[in-house]
Amino acid sequence: MCANIRKHKAIYIWKGEIYKEKEYRALFKTREDKWEEIKETILKKHTYEAPVILKIRIEDANESFKNWADENLIDRAFGF
Amino acid sequence: MCANIRKHKAIYIWKGEIYKEKEYRALFKTREDKWEEIKETILKKHTYEAPVILKIRIEDANESFKNWADENLIDRAFGF
Amino acid sequence: MCANIRKHKAIYIWKGEIYKEKEYRALFKTREDKWEEIKETILKKHTYEAPVILKIRIEDANESFKNWADENLIDRAFGF
Repeated sequence: MCANIRKHKAIYIWKGEIYKEKEYRALFKTREDKWEEIKETILKKHTYEAPVILKIRIEDANESFKNWADENLIDRAFGF
Repeated sequence: MCANIRKHKAIYIWKGEIYKEKEYRALFKTREDKWEEIKETILKKHTYEAPVILKIRIEDANESFKNWADENLIDRAFGF
Repeated sequence: MCANIRKHKAIYIWKGEIYKEKEYRALFKTREDKWEEIKETILKKHTYEAPVILKIRIEDANESFKNWADENLIDRAFGF
């Protein structure tokens, strides 16, 4: 698992009201077969009723990162 | 509509000159059929002659966000 | 070439240890046929043994950006 975290400002409509909030955004780089597990873990831990969890496909990556992913993401349980 | 805004530093070539500028980057999460409308709205409002407006496909998302999108993005006009 | 740079906090496992580091993340917007060249250039210059270099497909963009890309990314060598 490799995660990148940063702040952003979010503007959204929730139940008819416009909200402007400072939030943290986390980018998780992982294997495709971990998607369901990661999504469920975020949903359980997140304080929002409807957080935004998006899956984006990576078309390619450098070999050294792919090797790192193969060594570190197969058997290791997800979680911090 | 849900937008996330943050600052970054941009380095680019424009008409033969290298520019290094602090910019705001906005990430809009919306339905695919809103792409043309959003693109045109940004082009009208943006101060740059050639802003960068990129469309990225989301492969999947959590059900609660999809439900939120269905309720909030169909009939509501785009705009802040 | 157009690059956007910002800070984030990275959390990752490297050789069995958990690291939490402040990093800079660079987003390069370029033509698909530049991928190999950019990847190799980053690998040569980056201080990490296994940096994360990810390729993300852009489905569409505004015409003025596409024109800018055609004019600025074909013959110009990559590099800062």
